Amino acid sequence: RSEEMAKSTQLIDNEVFRAYATYTAIVLLKMMLMSLVTAYFRITRKAFVNPEDTASFGKGDSAKKYLRTDPDVERVRRGHLNDLENIVPFVGIGLLYALSGPELSTALLHFRIFTGARIFHTFAYLIPLPQPGRGLSWAVGYAVTFSMTYRVLKTVLLL
Amino acid sequence: RSEEMAKSTQLIDNEVFRAYATYTAIVLLKMMLMSLVTAYFRITRKAFVNPEDTASFGKGDSAKKYLRTDPDVERVRRGHLNDLENIVPFVGIGLLYALSGPELSTALLHFRIFTGARIFHTFAYLIPLPQPGRGLSWAVGYAVTFSMTYRVLKTVLLL
Amino acid sequence: RSEEMAKSTQLIDNEVFRAYATYTAIVLLKMMLMSLVTAYFRITRKAFVNPEDTASFGKGDSAKKYLRTDPDVERVRRGHLNDLENIVPFVGIGLLYALSGPELSTALLHFRIFTGARIFHTFAYLIPLPQPGRGLSWAVGYAVTFSMTYRVLKTVLLL
Repeated sequence: RSEEMAKSTQLIDNEVFRAYATYTAIVLLKMMLMSLVTAYFRITRKAFVNPEDTASFGKGDSAKKYLRTDPDVERVRRGHLNDLENIVPFVGIGLLYALSGPELSTALLHFRIFTGARIFHTFAYLIPLPQPGRGLSWAVGYAVTFSMTYRVLKTVLLL
Repeated sequence: RSEEMAKSTQLIDNEVFRAYATYTAIVLLKMMLMSLVTAYFRITRKAFVNPEDTASFGKGDSAKKYLRTDPDVERVRRGHLNDLENIVPFVGIGLLYALSGPELSTALLHFRIFTGARIFHTFAYLIPLPQPGRGLSWAVGYAVTFSMTYRVLKTVLLL
Repeated sequence: RSEEMAKSTQLIDNEVFRAYATYTAIVLLKMMLMSLVTAYFRITRKAFVNPEDTASFGKGDSAKKYLRTDPDVERVRRGHLNDLENIVPFVGIGLLYALSGPELSTALLHFRIFTGARIFHTFAYLIPLPQPGRGLSWAVGYAVTFSMTYRVLKTVLLL
């Protein structure tokens, strides 16, 4: 039992894996914050989608008018979905990449650029910044995940 | 080769990791069931989105009228997306948390509360229950993942 | 330090884990490609959703007309979301499955069928092929993940 505990601790003691864990926790946390931003805009813009969510505004037509879409809410939701589309591959491939034995400095470079790019992407989407700000930050994160995928396939390929 | 097999078996023999694997399998299975519920409502409400999905109802206008949105279908789809937004962080951070060497009892507490909250959330969304039922169950799951993130970052931080 | 590196390398040297890593990298890469297909259709169909994305087409009404939905763009987006809904459970449960010590041949069978089914599903969605082509390929991938979930729960169950 204690040997097992030790073993599971050893993976987490590997420096590349610790870096992976750190940046994965950060980007997943950032993605989770999108839910709070959505909730904030839904409440301040009074724009809801479920009838039961507007019940506190009264009954009938007085509540129904809050069942509507709002541009700010939709914008945050698009940013959230874009996070899912891009952070899921990062987390999945990043784990395999971290286990493929890269240099710590190379791994940190990948993780830091991806995390920075996604944080910038969120600000670019929500402010919003003029293009190509958002597009470029998306492309940078995409390229990082692509680079890790290449290394994983080169290292482990077993079809 | 047999040594490698033994090694990969050892991680799965760690009790915290086994608990993580159990609850991750359950919540991912629950999420997958949303696809079946969506299909059920699409078929019983005859509400489809792809023209090729309505071809069996005939040609032309007789089939076209089934290309429509239905409130029940949309409700399930929102529940499914909410699962993706919340279960993905749980699975990703939960893995790191399980590897960070928490007490089994503490880990089980996190996994059980999250799983219970998400199952409740699904029922609250689909029935639907009056608010704040759904909101609170969402917040409970969110708080559990947040608590695991805190422990992961405290244990492994390597920026 | 070198011992840690050796350890993390050992998991990746396990053949079942290498197979998992290979097919996970392939299906996540396939999912990522959906972003490029979406961008391709948005640009060729001139159908955008963010005002800042149409700024290069001029100002005012001349740019506003490109803020519209396009059937081809929406089709790719549905395929992308379907990937998220199905590939996320595969990646999460596949990892646990790979660590549960299955036979290499059995594991390869699961990974290959899932990957083939999802690639077929994408073509069936985008071409589009008449039903039940897309539906069946979805069901095959679903069944593979379900089979892996069953094995994981049977092997590790700790509630």
